[in-house]
Amino acid sequence: MPSVPVPPELDEFLAKPNAAVVATLRPDGSPHTAATWYDWEDGRVLLNMADTRVRLGYMRADPRVSLTVLAEQDWYRHVSLMGRIVSIEEDVDLRDIDRLAVRYTRRPYGKRDVKRFSAWLEPQRWHVWPPR
Amino acid sequence: MPSVPVPPELDEFLAKPNAAVVATLRPDGSPHTAATWYDWEDGRVLLNMADTRVRLGYMRADPRVSLTVLAEQDWYRHVSLMGRIVSIEEDVDLRDIDRLAVRYTRRPYGKRDVKRFSAWLEPQRWHVWPPR
Repeated sequence: MPSVPVPPELDEFLAKPNAAVVATLRPDGSPHTAATWYDWEDGRVLLNMADTRVRLGYMRADPRVSLTVLAEQDWYRHVSLMGRIVSIEEDVDLRDIDRLAVRYTRRPYGKRDVKRFSAWLEPQRWHVWPPR
Repeated sequence: MPSVPVPPELDEFLAKPNAAVVATLRPDGSPHTAATWYDWEDGRVLLNMADTRVRLGYMRADPRVSLTVLAEQDWYRHVSLMGRIVSIEEDVDLRDIDRLAVRYTRRPYGKRDVKRFSAWLEPQRWHVWPPR
Protein backbone atom coordinates (compact mmCIF):
# COMPACT_ATOMS: atom_id res chain seq x y z
CA MET A 1 0.00 0.00 0.00
CA PRO A 2 1.54 3.31 -1.04
CA SER A 3 2.64 5.83 1.59
CA VAL A 4 1.94 9.53 1.56
CA PRO A 5 1.90 11.92 -0.10
CA VAL A 6 -1.44 11.19 -1.68
CA PRO A 7 -0.79 11.85 -5.39
CA PRO A 8 -2.23 15.05 -6.83
CA GLU A 9 -4.26 13.01 -9.35
CA LEU A 10 -6.49 11.99 -6.44
CA ASP A 11 -7.15 15.56 -5.35
CA GLU A 12 -9.94 16.06 -7.85
CA PHE A 13 -11.69 12.88 -6.72
CA LEU A 14 -11.34 13.66 -3.04
CA ALA A 15 -12.48 17.25 -3.53
CA LYS A 16 -15.92 16.06 -4.67
CA PRO A 17 -18.71 15.66 -2.12
CA ASN A 18 -18.58 11.88 -2.37
CA ALA A 19 -20.06 9.30 -0.05
CA ALA A 20 -17.60 8.10 2.59
CA VAL A 21 -17.31 5.62 5.44
CA VAL A 22 -14.94 6.07 8.37
CA ALA A 23 -13.57 3.24 10.48
CA THR A 24 -12.45 3.78 14.06
CA LEU A 25 -11.34 1.36 16.79
CA ARG A 26 -13.56 0.36 19.70
CA PRO A 27 -11.97 0.00 23.13
CA ASP A 28 -11.53 -3.76 22.56
CA GLY A 29 -9.68 -3.06 19.30
CA SER A 30 -12.47 -4.18 16.97
CA PRO A 31 -13.45 -1.91 14.08
CA HIS A 32 -16.48 0.40 14.00
CA THR A 33 -17.74 1.95 10.77
CA ALA A 34 -20.20 4.72 9.92
CA ALA A 35 -21.10 6.91 6.95
CA THR A 36 -19.61 10.37 7.15
CA TRP A 37 -19.36 13.70 5.41
CA TYR A 38 -15.78 14.84 4.86
CA ASP A 39 -13.75 17.56 3.17
CA TRP A 40 -10.26 17.36 1.71
CA GLU A 41 -7.80 20.21 2.28
CA ASP A 42 -4.05 20.30 1.79
CA GLY A 43 -3.65 16.55 2.05
CA ARG A 44 -5.78 16.18 5.19
CA VAL A 45 -9.39 15.18 5.79
CA LEU A 46 -11.90 17.18 7.83
CA LEU A 47 -14.47 15.14 9.77
CA ASN A 48 -17.10 16.58 12.10
CA MET A 49 -19.26 14.92 14.75
CA ALA A 50 -21.85 15.78 17.36
CA ASP A 51 -20.32 15.25 20.79
CA THR A 52 -22.73 12.36 21.35
CA ARG A 53 -21.23 10.20 18.60
CA VAL A 54 -19.42 7.15 19.97
CA ARG A 55 -16.73 7.37 17.31
CA LEU A 56 -15.57 10.69 18.75
CA GLY A 57 -14.59 8.87 21.93
CA TYR A 58 -13.01 6.08 19.93
CA MET A 59 -10.83 8.58 18.04
CA ARG A 60 -9.79 10.22 21.29
CA ALA A 61 -8.75 6.87 22.76
CA ASP A 62 -7.00 5.58 19.62
CA PRO A 63 -6.33 7.99 16.74
CA ARG A 64 -5.96 5.30 14.08
CA VAL A 65 -8.69 5.54 11.44
CA SER A 66 -9.41 4.60 7.85
CA LEU A 67 -11.67 6.45 5.42
CA THR A 68 -13.06 5.02 2.19
CA VAL A 69 -14.43 7.51 -0.33
CA LEU A 70 -16.77 6.15 -3.03
CA ALA A 71 -17.20 7.48 -6.57
CA GLU A 72 -20.62 8.94 -7.29
CA GLN A 73 -21.44 7.13 -10.52
CA ASP A 74 -19.76 3.82 -9.74
CA TRP A 75 -19.37 3.37 -6.01
CA TYR A 76 -17.03 0.38 -6.34
CA ARG A 77 -14.41 2.87 -7.59
CA HIS A 78 -12.91 4.17 -4.38
CA VAL A 79 -10.01 5.74 -2.58
CA SER A 80 -9.08 4.67 0.95
CA LEU A 81 -6.97 6.81 3.25
CA MET A 82 -5.45 5.20 6.34
CA GLY A 83 -3.88 7.35 9.00
CA ARG A 84 -4.32 9.18 12.26
CA ILE A 85 -6.52 11.82 13.76
CA VAL A 86 -4.06 14.60 14.51
CA SER A 87 -6.42 17.12 16.09
CA ILE A 88 -9.86 17.18 17.70
CA GLU A 89 -11.28 20.59 18.54
CA GLU A 90 -14.68 21.95 19.35
CA ASP A 91 -16.44 23.36 16.30
CA VAL A 92 -17.19 26.72 17.88
CA ASP A 93 -19.87 28.66 15.94
CA LEU A 94 -20.43 25.43 13.89
CA ARG A 95 -18.22 26.80 11.16
CA ASP A 96 -16.88 23.41 10.08
CA ILE A 97 -20.21 21.58 10.01
CA ASP A 98 -21.63 24.48 7.98
CA ARG A 99 -18.72 24.07 5.57
CA LEU A 100 -19.55 20.37 5.20
CA ALA A 101 -23.30 20.97 4.98
CA VAL A 102 -22.86 23.57 2.22
CA ARG A 103 -20.53 21.17 0.41
CA TYR A 104 -23.04 18.31 0.55
CA THR A 105 -26.43 20.06 0.68
CA ARG A 106 -25.70 23.67 -0.44
CA ARG A 107 -27.19 24.95 2.81
CA PRO A 108 -25.79 25.67 6.28
CA TYR A 109 -26.36 22.95 8.85
CA GLY A 110 -29.87 22.96 10.27
CA LYS A 111 -29.41 21.70 13.82
CA ARG A 112 -27.73 24.51 15.79
CA ASP A 113 -28.22 23.37 19.40
CA VAL A 114 -25.70 20.50 19.58
CA LYS A 115 -22.06 20.79 20.58
CA ARG A 116 -19.86 19.46 17.77
CA PHE A 117 -16.22 18.60 17.25
CA SER A 118 -13.97 18.64 14.21
CA ALA A 119 -11.30 16.01 13.70
CA TRP A 120 -8.50 16.16 11.14
CA LEU A 121 -7.26 12.92 9.60
CA GLU A 122 -3.66 12.88 8.36
CA PRO A 123 -3.24 9.99 5.90
CA GLN A 124 -0.20 7.72 6.16
CA ARG A 125 -1.16 5.22 3.47
CA TRP A 126 -3.71 5.13 0.67
CA HIS A 127 -5.04 2.83 -1.99
CA VAL A 128 -7.29 3.23 -5.00
CA TRP A 129 -9.59 0.83 -6.79
CA PRO A 130 -9.30 0.02 -9.62
CA PRO A 131 -5.50 0.19 -9.52
CA ARG A 132 -4.16 3.05 -11.61
CA MET B 1 -25.17 -0.25 20.27
CA PRO B 2 -27.81 -2.97 20.00
CA SER B 3 -26.80 -6.63 19.97
CA VAL B 4 -28.05 -9.29 17.61
CA PRO B 5 -30.42 -10.39 16.30
CA VAL B 6 -30.53 -7.77 13.58
CA PRO B 7 -34.22 -6.79 13.56
CA PRO B 8 -36.31 -8.09 10.64
CA GLU B 9 -37.15 -4.51 9.63
CA LEU B 10 -33.56 -4.23 8.39
CA ASP B 11 -33.79 -7.32 6.21
CA GLU B 12 -35.38 -5.45 3.32
CA PHE B 13 -32.66 -2.79 3.37
CA LEU B 14 -29.82 -5.30 3.62
CA ALA B 15 -31.31 -7.47 0.87
CA LYS B 16 -30.86 -4.65 -1.67
CA PRO B 17 -27.64 -4.49 -3.72
CA ASN B 18 -26.46 -1.43 -1.83
CA ALA B 19 -23.00 0.10 -1.71
CA ALA B 20 -20.94 -1.15 1.23
CA VAL B 21 -17.58 -0.66 2.90
CA VAL B 22 -15.87 -3.32 5.00
CA ALA B 23 -13.33 -2.60 7.73
CA THR B 24 -10.73 -5.16 8.74
CA LEU B 25 -7.74 -4.97 11.11
CA ARG B 26 -4.18 -4.71 9.87
CA PRO B 27 -1.47 -6.65 11.72
CA ASP B 28 -0.65 -3.57 13.82
CA GLY B 29 -4.32 -3.29 14.86
CA SER B 30 -5.11 -0.23 12.74
CA PRO B 31 -8.23 -0.28 10.58
CA HIS B 32 -8.31 -0.91 6.82
CA THR B 33 -11.39 -0.12 4.71
CA ALA B 34 -12.47 -0.96 1.16
CA ALA B 35 -15.65 -0.93 -0.91
CA THR B 36 -17.24 -4.34 -1.23
CA TRP B 37 -20.12 -6.25 -2.73
CA TYR B 38 -22.07 -8.28 -0.19
CA ASP B 39 -25.19 -10.40 0.17
CA TRP B 40 -27.41 -10.89 3.20
CA GLU B 41 -28.71 -14.36 4.05
CA ASP B 42 -30.27 -15.64 7.26
CA GLY B 43 -28.70 -12.95 9.40
CA ARG B 44 -25.20 -13.33 7.99
CA VAL B 45 -23.24 -11.45 5.34
CA LEU B 46 -21.49 -13.02 2.35
CA LEU B 47 -18.26 -11.35 1.22
CA ASN B 48 -16.00 -12.58 -1.56
CA MET B 49 -12.41 -11.70 -2.46
CA ALA B 50 -9.71 -12.60 -4.92
CA ASP B 51 -6.94 -14.41 -3.05
CA THR B 52 -4.64 -11.45 -3.74
CA ARG B 53 -6.67 -9.01 -1.61
CA VAL B 54 -4.81 -7.95 1.53
CA ARG B 55 -8.02 -7.89 3.56
CA LEU B 56 -8.36 -11.65 3.12
CA GLY B 57 -5.16 -12.10 5.10
CA TYR B 58 -6.30 -9.53 7.65
CA MET B 59 -9.55 -11.47 8.21
CA ARG B 60 -7.63 -14.71 8.63
CA ALA B 61 -5.35 -13.15 11.25
CA ASP B 62 -8.12 -11.32 13.14
CA PRO B 63 -11.76 -12.11 12.32
CA ARG B 64 -13.19 -8.87 13.72
CA VAL B 65 -14.79 -6.76 10.99
CA SER B 66 -17.36 -4.03 10.51
CA LEU B 67 -19.55 -3.48 7.46
CA THR B 68 -21.43 -0.27 6.65
CA VAL B 69 -24.20 -0.53 4.05
CA LEU B 70 -25.35 2.72 2.43
CA ALA B 71 -28.85 3.52 1.12
CA GLU B 72 -29.04 4.03 -2.61
CA GLN B 73 -30.92 7.33 -2.76
CA ASP B 74 -29.46 8.92 0.36
CA TRP B 75 -26.14 7.34 1.25
CA TYR B 76 -25.96 8.96 4.67
CA ARG B 77 -28.77 6.58 5.68
CA HIS B 78 -26.90 3.46 6.64
CA VAL B 79 -26.76 0.23 8.59
CA SER B 80 -23.53 -0.94 10.20
CA LEU B 81 -22.95 -4.54 11.22
CA MET B 82 -20.07 -5.30 13.56
CA GLY B 83 -19.01 -8.87 14.14
CA ARG B 84 -16.73 -11.71 13.17
CA ILE B 85 -15.81 -13.68 10.11
CA VAL B 86 -16.93 -17.17 11.01
CA SER B 87 -15.83 -19.00 7.88
CA ILE B 88 -13.45 -18.50 4.97
CA GLU B 89 -13.61 -21.04 2.17
CA GLU B 90 -12.43 -21.18 -1.40
CA ASP B 91 -15.13 -20.19 -3.86
CA VAL B 92 -14.83 -23.31 -5.97
CA ASP B 93 -16.48 -22.88 -9.40
CA LEU B 94 -16.87 -19.16 -8.54
CA ARG B 95 -20.44 -19.79 -7.48
CA ASP B 96 -20.47 -17.11 -4.78
CA ILE B 97 -18.86 -14.34 -6.84
CA ASP B 98 -21.34 -15.14 -9.62
CA ARG B 99 -24.13 -14.79 -7.08
CA LEU B 100 -22.80 -11.37 -6.08
CA ALA B 101 -22.14 -10.28 -9.67
CA VAL B 102 -25.67 -11.22 -10.74
CA ARG B 103 -27.03 -9.35 -7.71
CA TYR B 104 -25.07 -6.19 -8.55
CA THR B 105 -24.64 -6.31 -12.33
CA ARG B 106 -27.22 -8.92 -13.49
CA ARG B 107 -24.43 -10.92 -15.14
CA PRO B 108 -22.06 -13.68 -13.98
CA TYR B 109 -18.61 -12.51 -12.97
CA GLY B 110 -16.35 -11.85 -15.93
CA LYS B 111 -12.89 -12.71 -14.65
CA ARG B 112 -12.73 -16.51 -14.32
CA ASP B 113 -8.98 -17.12 -13.93
CA VAL B 114 -8.45 -15.91 -10.36
CA LYS B 115 -8.77 -18.01 -7.21
CA ARG B 116 -11.35 -16.47 -4.89
CA PHE B 117 -12.53 -16.95 -1.31
CA SER B 118 -15.87 -16.42 0.37
CA ALA B 119 -16.07 -15.10 3.91
CA TRP B 120 -19.19 -15.10 6.09
CA LEU B 121 -19.65 -12.28 8.59
CA GLU B 122 -21.75 -13.04 11.66
CA PRO B 123 -22.92 -9.74 13.19
CA GLN B 124 -22.71 -9.24 16.95
CA ARG B 125 -23.82 -5.60 17.09
CA TRP B 126 -25.52 -3.24 14.66
CA HIS B 127 -26.56 0.38 14.37
CA VAL B 128 -28.69 2.33 11.96
CA TRP B 129 -28.66 5.97 10.95
CA PRO B 130 -30.92 7.85 11.32
CA PRO B 131 -32.01 6.21 14.61
CA ARG B 132 -35.34 4.47 14.31
